Amino acid sequence: MSKYNDLYTYIRKQITDGQIKNGAKLPSVRKAGALFGVSRTTVQNAYFALAADGFIISEPQSGYYVSYHKAKQSLNKSEKEKNTPEYDFKSGSADRESFEFDLWRRYMKSALRHDDRLLTYSEPQGEEDLRNALSDYIREKRNVTASPDRIVIGAGVQSLLGILCSLIDKKSTASFPDRSFIQGASLFEDYGFDVRYRYKDAKIIYVSPSHMNARGDIMPNKRRIDLVSYSAKNGSLVIEDDYESDFQYNSVPVPSLYALAGGENVVYLGSFSKLLLPSIRISFMVLTEELAEKYSENINRYNQTAGKTEQIALCQYIRDNHLKAQIRKIRRFYTAKAKAFAALLSKEFPDSEVEISENALQIIFTHRFCKNPKIFEKHGIAVLIEKCENDTVTLILNTGAVPQNRFNDAVEALKKAIL
Amino acid sequence: MSKYNDLYTYIRKQITDGQIKNGAKLPSVRKAGALFGVSRTTVQNAYFALAADGFIISEPQSGYYVSYHKAKQSLNKSEKEKNTPEYDFKSGSADRESFEFDLWRRYMKSALRHDDRLLTYSEPQGEEDLRNALSDYIREKRNVTASPDRIVIGAGVQSLLGILCSLIDKKSTASFPDRSFIQGASLFEDYGFDVRYRYKDAKIIYVSPSHMNARGDIMPNKRRIDLVSYSAKNGSLVIEDDYESDFQYNSVPVPSLYALAGGENVVYLGSFSKLLLPSIRISFMVLTEELAEKYSENINRYNQTAGKTEQIALCQYIRDNHLKAQIRKIRRFYTAKAKAFAALLSKEFPDSEVEISENALQIIFTHRFCKNPKIFEKHGIAVLIEKCENDTVTLILNTGAVPQNRFNDAVEALKKAIL
Repeated sequence: MSKYNDLYTYIRKQITDGQIKNGAKLPSVRKAGALFGVSRTTVQNAYFALAADGFIISEPQSGYYVSYHKAKQSLNKSEKEKNTPEYDFKSGSADRESFEFDLWRRYMKSALRHDDRLLTYSEPQGEEDLRNALSDYIREKRNVTASPDRIVIGAGVQSLLGILCSLIDKKSTASFPDRSFIQGASLFEDYGFDVRYRYKDAKIIYVSPSHMNARGDIMPNKRRIDLVSYSAKNGSLVIEDDYESDFQYNSVPVPSLYALAGGENVVYLGSFSKLLLPSIRISFMVLTEELAEKYSENINRYNQTAGKTEQIALCQYIRDNHLKAQIRKIRRFYTAKAKAFAALLSKEFPDSEVEISENALQIIFTHRFCKNPKIFEKHGIAVLIEKCENDTVTLILNTGAVPQNRFNDAVEALKKAIL
Repeated sequence: MSKYNDLYTYIRKQITDGQIKNGAKLPSVRKAGALFGVSRTTVQNAYFALAADGFIISEPQSGYYVSYHKAKQSLNKSEKEKNTPEYDFKSGSADRESFEFDLWRRYMKSALRHDDRLLTYSEPQGEEDLRNALSDYIREKRNVTASPDRIVIGAGVQSLLGILCSLIDKKSTASFPDRSFIQGASLFEDYGFDVRYRYKDAKIIYVSPSHMNARGDIMPNKRRIDLVSYSAKNGSLVIEDDYESDFQYNSVPVPSLYALAGGENVVYLGSFSKLLLPSIRISFMVLTEELAEKYSENINRYNQTAGKTEQIALCQYIRDNHLKAQIRKIRRFYTAKAKAFAALLSKEFPDSEVEISENALQIIFTHRFCKNPKIFEKHGIAVLIEKCENDTVTLILNTGAVPQNRFNDAVEALKKAIL
């Protein structure tokens, strides 16, 4: 924890405990620096953070004042946080150890210096230099060969699917592996597609081959080849959502459908929320030759949704080879976590079945159990219950968001719940 | 221009002129600092910017190297820039004088310190504290009274309209004032609405009352009241896109349709691209009670598109009252620019008609003219030609993106084109 953070926490407590009354003026940055024996920057940062979280407000030319009304808001918020589970094995949040914040901050700061670029709207298709960098990156990494003008950038996969829907004239049938990706399925329904599940004979086939189901199974090569040749025969379009393709537990890397199909009839989707930060809203879509043409004809119908600052920062980050390093890092990191927790589980539950998913993000845990599944919630555990019948329960545990130093407590909570 | 910018431009020229060969190593930050007599930070910033623009790459633990391949890319880019008009009276870009970059940078940097918040996905509806701040802000500014849970944040108006479309069950008729807002109209068509133009009897009526047309006319109160009561009678939904409501030339402020309707049957849209930076992709939508309920029932169908860092920064920026100050600033600024250019035009074209639009952003310029309208392009002028018949031309000039110190040259170019 940094100095400013300690100071932040200290003052925040003073406010929420009512030690500092509402409307009271905080000591000036200089005074506070002397008072707490820290640099002025440290105090400034703490005050910024407190203002951002609504505990104080800054009155220009006057100083910082405690703002109780807003403090109340944030208190409610922390109330909420209390209601969030203590051990969240469902969450898509990242482990703070998984990401080098200082590095990313450096790139964002550098991006923020591009005054001239920030004065203009982003290109509808996304910043050209980022599309160049992505084109190189996916060719190298996933053997996806596409010129930058076939790449469309957007804020999240859903916005890109929206563009894709509008590019497909005939709204016929679209199939999804299951009902879990509701943001995608509902979007296709809204656009007038007849949406089906696990249905092979569809004009549009959405798949996420590196995370086929809650268990995190990876589509085997054989099935990939089948799907590609099948869809080619039927003239259907495959949407390959390649997210989590970088979390491959089995060392044998699987080829992308796009590469297998030689770029025909496959739209490739990639995103960075899982690789970098969930809060970074940048995804990209590689269109087929035909769709790319249609897109550029209608380009004035679309706005760019991804922020320009983050696009500039990500481009530079990729060019400096930090993305590759980051992928290596989180692969090791999350695999190690899953293994460690799996080991702990097998030790503490000798008569249970513990299995690590193929993508190394989930643990499939089966144990004797004849209680009400609600018991997990009661013990502060958020977990996906795959099966609960015949006196056994199968849980799917994602250790990504649970810090490693909480593993023992988490296992204790699981014991209390199960045994 | 800042020091690092001069250094950036200098080195960039050296590279593009081939003075520094591809692959050559640049002097270390320390060396360069001494060499150019600037601080190390300055050099660092210049190097970052050069890397971001693809002229050099940084090899960790080694240094910075000229990267010709990428330099070529950026050269093509600057080639393009050459093809962009010299005097762009159509552009939506901002004037660098209109925005305090350092201030915004400070808020972004402060937002980037919220590690814990950046580790999680943004709330689908948008960050709670920003929705709180927006709720206060629009109540004060536009008398739009709505609790934060009726506000939805998104990356641009188009993404928000997409959500709105999906919330409206019966896809019947939607009307737009004209064909200029193609991103909106095409979206409604994609969602199966029967889109009409200047058509009063529609179930959905989109209007932008503060910028009704290319001329930038503002909807008069009388018509606002008519529209509200009419739509209430017909049970139609009005979408009020309030953009540019802050650029009111006539000092009499016009009420929002939302306020006139008492929040009934009106969806209110606001955005910050025009107020702050075009590159900041944050807009918001105030839903009606009924639609807000529907939204929260289906909230798991939607992802947040706006970046979290910018949401945190904007929230803090608003709370510290900088947005209000910024609005006052740009109103003065852009009005002054329009007036100055209008004065210059009247002086240089004595026998012409020069009029400033109601929203003070456009100049309507009419003059004798019997040439091919393409002539403007030829003289590097991008301009909207409203009418060109009977030996007269009417131009709509937006001076927003043309720096004031280019006004004289711009008028010269206009002269060459017209006379």
